[in-house]
Amino acid sequence: MRDIRKEHKPGAEKRIRMSDDLIWGVHPVLEALLQEPERVQEVILHRERRSGKLDEIVGIAKAKGIRTTLVQSLRLTGEGAAEVRHQGVLARTSQTALLPFDDLLKRFAAQVQNGEMPRLIACDSLQDPHNLGAIIRSALASGTVGVILTRERSAPLSGTAVKASAGAVSHIDICQVTNLVAALKKIKEAGAWVFGAVKDGAAQSLYATDFRLPACVVVGSEGAGIRPLVRRECDILISIPMAGSLDSLNSSVAAAVILFEAMRQNTGSP
Amino acid sequence: MRDIRKEHKPGAEKRIRMSDDLIWGVHPVLEALLQEPERVQEVILHRERRSGKLDEIVGIAKAKGIRTTLVQSLRLTGEGAAEVRHQGVLARTSQTALLPFDDLLKRFAAQVQNGEMPRLIACDSLQDPHNLGAIIRSALASGTVGVILTRERSAPLSGTAVKASAGAVSHIDICQVTNLVAALKKIKEAGAWVFGAVKDGAAQSLYATDFRLPACVVVGSEGAGIRPLVRRECDILISIPMAGSLDSLNSSVAAAVILFEAMRQNTGSP
Repeated sequence: MRDIRKEHKPGAEKRIRMSDDLIWGVHPVLEALLQEPERVQEVILHRERRSGKLDEIVGIAKAKGIRTTLVQSLRLTGEGAAEVRHQGVLARTSQTALLPFDDLLKRFAAQVQNGEMPRLIACDSLQDPHNLGAIIRSALASGTVGVILTRERSAPLSGTAVKASAGAVSHIDICQVTNLVAALKKIKEAGAWVFGAVKDGAAQSLYATDFRLPACVVVGSEGAGIRPLVRRECDILISIPMAGSLDSLNSSVAAAVILFEAMRQNTGSP
Repeated sequence: MRDIRKEHKPGAEKRIRMSDDLIWGVHPVLEALLQEPERVQEVILHRERRSGKLDEIVGIAKAKGIRTTLVQSLRLTGEGAAEVRHQGVLARTSQTALLPFDDLLKRFAAQVQNGEMPRLIACDSLQDPHNLGAIIRSALASGTVGVILTRERSAPLSGTAVKASAGAVSHIDICQVTNLVAALKKIKEAGAWVFGAVKDGAAQSLYATDFRLPACVVVGSEGAGIRPLVRRECDILISIPMAGSLDSLNSSVAAAVILFEAMRQNTGSP
């Protein structure tokens, strides 16, 4: 059997602080990957321990698009750390109850068929946990019904992001998807228009955009923006008209300006 | 002479890292306070050094509303620290060139008289430097012509805030005022309407508000909001209609949603 772990670079992380979102040991991690993969944010393995079970863990994590990190040594610190027998494997899980994508899709489709105009936001590879938390908070406040996150290259839905969301993570449906392109195709089949937020001068102005329909707004990371394949799934590319010479906004601010404009149009405000 | 320093609590800060925004020594600090008080963010003094000059420094700083901090010991660290003879006094200055308030007022009044609809934003006691930087960035992008900060209980315009502004601090007029109530009175005399952002259900909806006039938007800190005396200077209290159960937004997001709505109305977008 090919050793998949060789494909991963060793991480610098050696000491890991005990926290509520950690699970450890071969069987608990394997069980989490099989039963609740949507809650597993990252698997961390000792690079020199070898067993068929660890290879199986790496294989499943990879198949589900979950980040795996190999470390030179794996030492837990903090309260309770002394009692932990991690067997060379840890997983960081999400404290937040995530919804499976199919359930989110079903709810969204039902709202569309009911004549409503539900709105979703999809975050493509958003790596800054402060921005992620702020976007979830703004999504809730702007009447957005769900948040879709990419599994890879996305900030974990733990500590910082949960704190930045000011509690909003517990009040809005959130799901993680391995393949955002496939997810957007299904969302469009369910009746949504997909709006991609970009910085191009060629894109349509946010304020010339009609949001009075079922919608999914896609935002990218601050640096790279939306990935090309994801961008191709967007029905309409929109940008926020800006004054000044810098032509940039913090990505959580940009998301909020778009989501609140969509709510403004849908609540019939002047 | 009354020892003004006794009124200040000793600070915990003992080691201070060398940085470009520090000046030290009795005469340089005194000179900065007399010549460019708008750039002095904080004066830090050794509590056991005594001299008439240090009392004079404390007196001037207090009169100009500049924070003074007394410390038990004053040790500089980092490159170049060994050569510094601080004489018991340091000042943190702003890296950002600030505009005197009267100049900002003069420019604003001239634009109003010219038939333009300039917009200002005033931040009342905004203590989070990330939010401060993000607001300055959004202000620039939304065509706001100037930012007014309070001197006291405000995040310093240095490191974190400058970074969070993504360079915007160098492209927009920023001033600091000791008395925001007095500043708002003058801004109103110059022809502006003052809009206070609050969370009251009783306030007018942002979207029912007409921003097609010279305006100054006032935002408060995330926790406390706008102070009561400042609130009394507002012509119109506005709030952002929100969905969901939490009814709160990050303060930089709230400021951006308001500033972009004001820009939308003024650029004649649908």
